[in-house]
Amino acid sequence: MTPKPTLAVVGATGAVGSAMLQMLTHHADVWGEIRLVSSPRSAGRKAPVRGVECEILALDEDAFEGVDLALFLVPEPVAARWAPVAVAKGAVVVDTSAAFRADPDVPLVVPETNPHAARVRPRGIVASPGCTTLALIVAVGALHAEFGLAELVVTAQQAASGAGAGQAGVEALRAQLGLVAGGGDLGTHPGDVRRAIGENTGPFPGPLALNVLPWSGTPGADGASSEEERVRDETRRVLGLPGLRVAATCVRVPVITGHSVSVHARFEHPVPLGRAHEILATSPGVVLYDDPAAGDFPTPADVVGTDPTWVGRVRRSMDDDRALDLFVCADNLRKGAALNALQIAESIVTAL
Amino acid sequence: MTPKPTLAVVGATGAVGSAMLQMLTHHADVWGEIRLVSSPRSAGRKAPVRGVECEILALDEDAFEGVDLALFLVPEPVAARWAPVAVAKGAVVVDTSAAFRADPDVPLVVPETNPHAARVRPRGIVASPGCTTLALIVAVGALHAEFGLAELVVTAQQAASGAGAGQAGVEALRAQLGLVAGGGDLGTHPGDVRRAIGENTGPFPGPLALNVLPWSGTPGADGASSEEERVRDETRRVLGLPGLRVAATCVRVPVITGHSVSVHARFEHPVPLGRAHEILATSPGVVLYDDPAAGDFPTPADVVGTDPTWVGRVRRSMDDDRALDLFVCADNLRKGAALNALQIAESIVTAL
Ligand SMILES: NC(=O)c1ccc[n+]([C@@H]2O[C@H](COP(=O)([O-])OP(=O)(O)OC[C@H]3O[C@@H](n4cnc5c(N)ncnc54)[C@H](OP(=O)(O)O)[C@@H]3O)[C@@H](O)[C@H]2O)c1
Ligand SMILES: NC(=O)c1ccc[n+]([C@@H]2O[C@H](COP(=O)([O-])OP(=O)(O)OC[C@H]3O[C@@H](n4cnc5c(N)ncnc54)[C@H](OP(=O)(O)O)[C@@H]3O)[C@@H](O)[C@H]2O)c1
Repeated sequence: MTPKPTLAVVGATGAVGSAMLQMLTHHADVWGEIRLVSSPRSAGRKAPVRGVECEILALDEDAFEGVDLALFLVPEPVAARWAPVAVAKGAVVVDTSAAFRADPDVPLVVPETNPHAARVRPRGIVASPGCTTLALIVAVGALHAEFGLAELVVTAQQAASGAGAGQAGVEALRAQLGLVAGGGDLGTHPGDVRRAIGENTGPFPGPLALNVLPWSGTPGADGASSEEERVRDETRRVLGLPGLRVAATCVRVPVITGHSVSVHARFEHPVPLGRAHEILATSPGVVLYDDPAAGDFPTPADVVGTDPTWVGRVRRSMDDDRALDLFVCADNLRKGAALNALQIAESIVTAL
Repeated sequence: MTPKPTLAVVGATGAVGSAMLQMLTHHADVWGEIRLVSSPRSAGRKAPVRGVECEILALDEDAFEGVDLALFLVPEPVAARWAPVAVAKGAVVVDTSAAFRADPDVPLVVPETNPHAARVRPRGIVASPGCTTLALIVAVGALHAEFGLAELVVTAQQAASGAGAGQAGVEALRAQLGLVAGGGDLGTHPGDVRRAIGENTGPFPGPLALNVLPWSGTPGADGASSEEERVRDETRRVLGLPGLRVAATCVRVPVITGHSVSVHARFEHPVPLGRAHEILATSPGVVLYDDPAAGDFPTPADVVGTDPTWVGRVRRSMDDDRALDLFVCADNLRKGAALNALQIAESIVTAL
């Protein structure tokens, strides 16, 4: 019997890292040693995984000694610098940052959608898409497999914990809520929420409490944000449709965790509505929850902390038998990051 | 000199009514007597308009005695019953409810977009569109006038005060904020927000604080909500495009007042981006606020309490020279209801 593989969790103390430790505790135990790694700021502290308190190591070359698989849950520049180090030490890296998502030598993988892509890893690295792509891709990918996707118009309502620096986003939103709750008529005069929140915007480009911010990430080309470009580029890569027409708008909403996406999709082939429901009801990783008159539709606050992609509001669009509208929700820390990365990692070590 | 016309404000105590009283105080004073009307619940109380406290009358036939123009800012069934009474008493009615918006004998009017429609009033009634249509129509209508609209895919983030019963929606959201602010890790476990809020959902089909609800209004045909059908039907009517392809999704977000809409629009003719900016920057009732890298984009919390439709994030969509994406915000109580109705009323009495 070969020994179980050694896993490193790099970024174990972050928002995605904390979700990862919970998942490692509850998933089937394919791992031998699990090593927790973070910045020197958290090194020496302990964190629980599989019911045991583990000491957190500082990120350095030695941290990857004997590691078979390294999960990278750290900011993009940290991943860009250290993933190749882990590979040089003999580990396969699964990275949740954007550092390698556009690299043609790094597969971009969603296990339900393009599992085979993870087998070819010229750089020893596999990338996991961003949380907004991951919120919609499993459901949209299942429909694409049968009807052929032609066009996608999406508006993503992103949660505070998906702002790249997840932990900081959550803290900022909670602080802002404290400042606006009980605040008399706040939210009724121009800029009153902005004044109440003052400097406490955290990683957001304006007040998030009692507001919607139509901008996330950094400026991309042609007026798009980096988050919007990622939804387009990552969807194209995962589905293998380099010319797919995609219009994406990403807005930030005052939700702690749980991205929701309004999806308008047009297909190459006619889509019988009953068959679309059937596909969504039976696809792995998808839960169809769709009876709005009875109050059954997914919401971020209801699906947070769960693994699947939840789908509701599935309906014919524009009286066009090739077009559908639907609404999807997923936990951006789980399917949007930790779960997808762990699924990739498990599929790799199981195939080793 | 003819005497100034007498105005009745029916529903003066509601969310839209309160915004109307403020507007009447600040708009050019074309009115003689202003009579405030509500349900018997509020009758006898006083409310300020033009700096004077006015006694509120109960809604009955006598309330319309001598009235030239009646603004109806009441629930749909109340408008359906009482607007014809006001007309029979000799008043022209401008109604903000959905009661007459689909009636072919009642024009549906947005003064910036189809002002002439208000001139032909077979039933003596003019309807004002719903707040979500009004949030987008002035900006989209200005672009349509030059490029010819072919297709619209919109996701509207609706505020609490736009929930039909505006006052009740605001109170419910404020109560919910109090229940979730300072609530430890609320928003991280499935259904924890729902449990914290309990029965305090108000007019919403679930918890709104720390959440997004992908359902508003009542069930329409084919899985759409009534709010989504209205966006489609009202946009078609106001623009005079009965066959316009429209896909609309309406979600409710935890914002007090201020609807925001993510718009994907396709036109009949190529749309030079510079010309689109120019049109939006110079159209009456529209403010272009569009430099996201500098933090300039409209948000509900910044535009609440203002009159215009604010437009930002204007960009090429899908590399298609006939497609644009943009983000619009407007105060649902002002341009979304009271302001549009008052503009219609002013245009009518000025032309009388
Ligand atoms: N949040 C989401 O929904 C989401 C979804 C998909 C992908 N991602 C990606 O996942 C990554 C982590 O996101 P997050 O939201 O979890 O961020 P986070 O809450 O800010 O956590 C960042 C983690 O990285 C560690 N770190 C930071 N600088 C480091 C350094 N120089 N050396 C070693 N470790 C360092 C932090 O350790 P300390 O605690 O010691 O500082 C912490 O564990 C990002 O690349 C993000 O883009 C996030
Ligand atoms: N809120 C928006 O953003 C918005 C936008 C566009 C259109 N609208 C439409 O505008 C109308 C008013 O909405 P709202 O949000 O202002 O509602 P609201 O806050 O609930 O106010 C309702 C108003 O109608 C009065 N009223 C209710 N029942 C009545 C009755 N039987 N007889 C006489 N008056 C009665 C109420 O008087 P009491 O105070 O005495 O009960 C109150 O003044 C609705 O038709 C709504 O669909 C609203």
